Amino acid sequence: LEKDLQATVTGSGGDGSVSREEFRQLVSNTLERRLFYIPSFKIYRGVAGLYDYGPPGCAVKSNVLSFWRQHFVLEENMLEVDCPCVTPEVVLKASGHVDKFTDLMVKDEKTGTCYRADHLLKDFCSEKLQKDLSITAKEAAELKHILAVLDELSAEELGAKLKEYGITAPDTKNPLSDPYPFNLMFQTSIGPSGLSSGFMRPETAQGIFVNFKDLYYYNGNKLPFAAAQIGQAFRNEISPRQGLLRVREFTLAEIEHFVDPEDKSHPNFSEVAKLEFLMFPREEQMSGQSAKKLCLGDAVAGGIVNNETLGYFIGRVYLFLTRLGINEDRLRFRQHLANEMAHYACDCWDAEIECSYGWIECVGIADRSAFDLRAHSEKSGVPLVAAEKFSEPREVEELIITPVKKELGLVFKGQQKNVVEALEAMKEEEALEMKANLETKGEMEFYVCTLEKNVSIKKSMVAISKQKKKVHQRVFTPSVIEPSFGIGRIIYCLYEHSFYTRPSKAGDDQLNVFRFPPLVAPIKCTVFPLVQNEKYEKVAKDISKSLTVAGISHKIDITGTSIGKRYARTDELGVPFAVTVDSTTSVTIRERDSKDQIRVNVEDAASVVKDVSEGLRTWTEVWASFPHHSSASADD
Amino acid sequence: LEKDLQATVTGSGGDGSVSREEFRQLVSNTLERRLFYIPSFKIYRGVAGLYDYGPPGCAVKSNVLSFWRQHFVLEENMLEVDCPCVTPEVVLKASGHVDKFTDLMVKDEKTGTCYRADHLLKDFCSEKLQKDLSITAKEAAELKHILAVLDELSAEELGAKLKEYGITAPDTKNPLSDPYPFNLMFQTSIGPSGLSSGFMRPETAQGIFVNFKDLYYYNGNKLPFAAAQIGQAFRNEISPRQGLLRVREFTLAEIEHFVDPEDKSHPNFSEVAKLEFLMFPREEQMSGQSAKKLCLGDAVAGGIVNNETLGYFIGRVYLFLTRLGINEDRLRFRQHLANEMAHYACDCWDAEIECSYGWIECVGIADRSAFDLRAHSEKSGVPLVAAEKFSEPREVEELIITPVKKELGLVFKGQQKNVVEALEAMKEEEALEMKANLETKGEMEFYVCTLEKNVSIKKSMVAISKQKKKVHQRVFTPSVIEPSFGIGRIIYCLYEHSFYTRPSKAGDDQLNVFRFPPLVAPIKCTVFPLVQNEKYEKVAKDISKSLTVAGISHKIDITGTSIGKRYARTDELGVPFAVTVDSTTSVTIRERDSKDQIRVNVEDAASVVKDVSEGLRTWTEVWASFPHHSSASADD
Repeated sequence: LEKDLQATVTGSGGDGSVSREEFRQLVSNTLERRLFYIPSFKIYRGVAGLYDYGPPGCAVKSNVLSFWRQHFVLEENMLEVDCPCVTPEVVLKASGHVDKFTDLMVKDEKTGTCYRADHLLKDFCSEKLQKDLSITAKEAAELKHILAVLDELSAEELGAKLKEYGITAPDTKNPLSDPYPFNLMFQTSIGPSGLSSGFMRPETAQGIFVNFKDLYYYNGNKLPFAAAQIGQAFRNEISPRQGLLRVREFTLAEIEHFVDPEDKSHPNFSEVAKLEFLMFPREEQMSGQSAKKLCLGDAVAGGIVNNETLGYFIGRVYLFLTRLGINEDRLRFRQHLANEMAHYACDCWDAEIECSYGWIECVGIADRSAFDLRAHSEKSGVPLVAAEKFSEPREVEELIITPVKKELGLVFKGQQKNVVEALEAMKEEEALEMKANLETKGEMEFYVCTLEKNVSIKKSMVAISKQKKKVHQRVFTPSVIEPSFGIGRIIYCLYEHSFYTRPSKAGDDQLNVFRFPPLVAPIKCTVFPLVQNEKYEKVAKDISKSLTVAGISHKIDITGTSIGKRYARTDELGVPFAVTVDSTTSVTIRERDSKDQIRVNVEDAASVVKDVSEGLRTWTEVWASFPHHSSASADD
Repeated sequence: LEKDLQATVTGSGGDGSVSREEFRQLVSNTLERRLFYIPSFKIYRGVAGLYDYGPPGCAVKSNVLSFWRQHFVLEENMLEVDCPCVTPEVVLKASGHVDKFTDLMVKDEKTGTCYRADHLLKDFCSEKLQKDLSITAKEAAELKHILAVLDELSAEELGAKLKEYGITAPDTKNPLSDPYPFNLMFQTSIGPSGLSSGFMRPETAQGIFVNFKDLYYYNGNKLPFAAAQIGQAFRNEISPRQGLLRVREFTLAEIEHFVDPEDKSHPNFSEVAKLEFLMFPREEQMSGQSAKKLCLGDAVAGGIVNNETLGYFIGRVYLFLTRLGINEDRLRFRQHLANEMAHYACDCWDAEIECSYGWIECVGIADRSAFDLRAHSEKSGVPLVAAEKFSEPREVEELIITPVKKELGLVFKGQQKNVVEALEAMKEEEALEMKANLETKGEMEFYVCTLEKNVSIKKSMVAISKQKKKVHQRVFTPSVIEPSFGIGRIIYCLYEHSFYTRPSKAGDDQLNVFRFPPLVAPIKCTVFPLVQNEKYEKVAKDISKSLTVAGISHKIDITGTSIGKRYARTDELGVPFAVTVDSTTSVTIRERDSKDQIRVNVEDAASVVKDVSEGLRTWTEVWASFPHHSSASADD
């Protein structure tokens, strides 16, 4: 990584080297100064883990979400829904969040300050490894092992390690409490009574699951189909670190693709099967290898990826991220290790993007099997199932248990009902065993739960048989394949991947540039008159009007600042094109990264900008079809 | 209204009459059945005041928000921001929400059930007026008066009225508590300590105000400018009624236009000055008249609307709403009465839309003067001000107080510092009085707070003068003009204004139609093969692909259902165009409301649909340029 950064950021240190931290500082300074983001409530000294998007950040976000909607919802005919953030407790009880959505916390025993237990242990181990030259190879191995298994340690194990190493509160050196789970959901109360507990949703997925029945109906009672949702989610982090990567409120874009568990093929898989990109399967991770380029079709065919549908989404996510401008050499799909996955999950791959903080999970793509729909079916009592209608009825064998009520009544009298119910509730295996026993021995002991005792069942008291039956459909709980996108994380990584510096023309300064593709750029174009002059201003305003009509976001700059400074200002916002008015009949259009300029008639300017902004033509194409313009004074 | 509804909804009752409630039921049934919206968490029996948008509702919302962004943010170069919903207490303390964002509540004294006090009184009065034929004219007048002033009653007044009329809990008839204020914000706790209180924001505006300084800087330290924000807001309503109109979580789109209080002119006012629409000024309301058509330019010139900027936004809101499809005869701009406005507001107009619930406030357009920025300046200690730089320095008179430290030191010794500070802290009036006294009497008594005593000041101890000074700028707190849009309310009213029914061809059924303009329609087009047939299906799929590339949302329907039923299904979703494939060379395109069809070559179909969907051509225009198609079997 450091090598890459040196190529990206010119002439920083005396020796030209740039550390990850220096690079991050350079990017964040630019982002904050140009209001891509702002720590929220700054005038009140802010709140950790909450950030605002300022005008360019907001435009980037809006562009990323529009493209997400185009790429996933529209192109794949997904059913988009929009559910509230306020969620009643029962929903998140069913999903497991009330009980399990926790991090382990320790408290400074004197001041009450809270820390994430794993953070303290991690910091201790990392620092020891880096700075303490006296540790033995064995000790170092132990510390490295802890770092590797950090996420899997129980409260007891974490507590024991903190004690063993004598770790205290970082600020005060006071002793720490034992680690205990802290639920990460923001809790609130719905309605005025104070009796109805609710939470701010920690993910958007649950809103889709609880609507499964209606959505399935809307889709004509057919599988597969996908529902999608974009919205805010909330996690009350114990101590947010890592800037925009770990925040307390964030935008998620989630897809729940419902599919027959017996058929996870995907009709459009062939469209992505030939893609090749960095994958990091379980086996390579276990054996200490690194990620390698794989062909997606081979990975699915070879069983590395569990099924076609999961593979299809991995491919679509790859296309989505790289079209946004994520560097494909710093993007990998990492498979979860067995111990990382929930017990119900079939397979799970994270799209990880490398930035100055390391490899960051930005999209999770999980086959969650039938877990979520089953959980809500059970809790709500509403069956969330699908049915496969057979084209012809099929014959199946069915167990029939027929208690002979007359015989039972004679013997059990008032307790007859309990015995009948217990007989009818027998599972197949149990019933067949009874059938065999009654046929050989004529009677047998049978435990009736509701009576809490054994009773004696005679052959005459119950008929057990297997009968053939015609069934017209198969009813089942669909599997869910869930691609879940952390939009803020993707955007932050995009900022780092798009950032570079280049020397100013005089060579005395470093200029910042974001190389956003037009799709993402917050503003597509700026319009400048070359010099302050009424005629040029009028031309600039006319072009601006045409751009507005064409729906191209742009800015007009009629300040008297030098043209070089104006270019530098817009390069720093990642504006890909600049129209400079230097005559009343034609203008120049400049491309940000090459700094190449073409000359275009005034009346064509807006439509050329529209075409290159919307990807209808590439810059290379327009470069080939218009006269080139070179002007020493016009740039830098 | 009822008359309008009869024209809208055909053949409902035996006598053809439709009540507001029947009309509402008809619309909501359609909306719920087609998943425009769904009560949230339905499988858990739902939560009052929370709704999901299903696929078509979500698409309509997304279209309305895109148009809002185009119409306001892009066309007016506003600075869009995106701030978190979770907000620390200090911000909402400064804004007044912690203390004043309340409704008056009463509790059933036995069961603890909560009610809005004004709702109970309102229901009592309305019912008495409607059903009790024995009341006298005087009693009726009293009840009507209560209904008129309901919003202004204090807790004591409300309590007295509830007692006077013997109003009890509606469900149990138990006695009620006295009314007391209930804060409508959802409260939560930020961070793990439980010590930092926060709320889910009740509006998005505060996020803009606290960022004023950065946004002003981003705008080149120039006024006027506007910031905008779209996002979720939350109100923990005591007992939500009126379906989608009063909910506990909703999407707001808010604009804060910052302007010099001494110059509220607007450069583009002339663009809206000629608009004419229903306005309902204060005077007309007070004198019992109704809303009347006014020319906006006249209303501003005549002082009915306080200033040009406020007027400009009223005009822009009118254009926004009518372009969405709001019926302009059922849209009025109502000025707030003096007692409705906050004490700091200059003027305030609500865009009210008439629906089956009556006239509903959907957009508020308020001149809030400098209230919000001042409140946050005071609370945070960070000055939120703007400066007007003078082109030439201006001369102003300034008071200069110069304590003569040597003289003061001789007399007051160790207390010299206190006296100096007290002298320097004098306000202009006080200082000028001292100057006059010292000039006439030579000395005077002067109270020094920090010493808690009077001291004697001699002429030699202080020089007081007024001096002329050159100043280069004027520093002031900007005024804020705030158009605030309740997106859910606008969408609900749009549903009612767009809905109508028409008889099926056989005349045995009433078919529902939403006449959404293409801008708003959830899906722009459906594509059907006329009969199930491989060749037609291929054509349909090709057209679908071209539509996807063109970014036109559409649906392909290859079920074997009759073409009439398929048209009816899409009419009910408000899909404006349908492409029917009845040959391999040409297809028909049908317009929803006229049911007119044109014949178009297969390869032109997508681009014709794109043009009419995006408003590049009107249906009238394409109707004039393509051969018409009539087919008895093809419709209904």
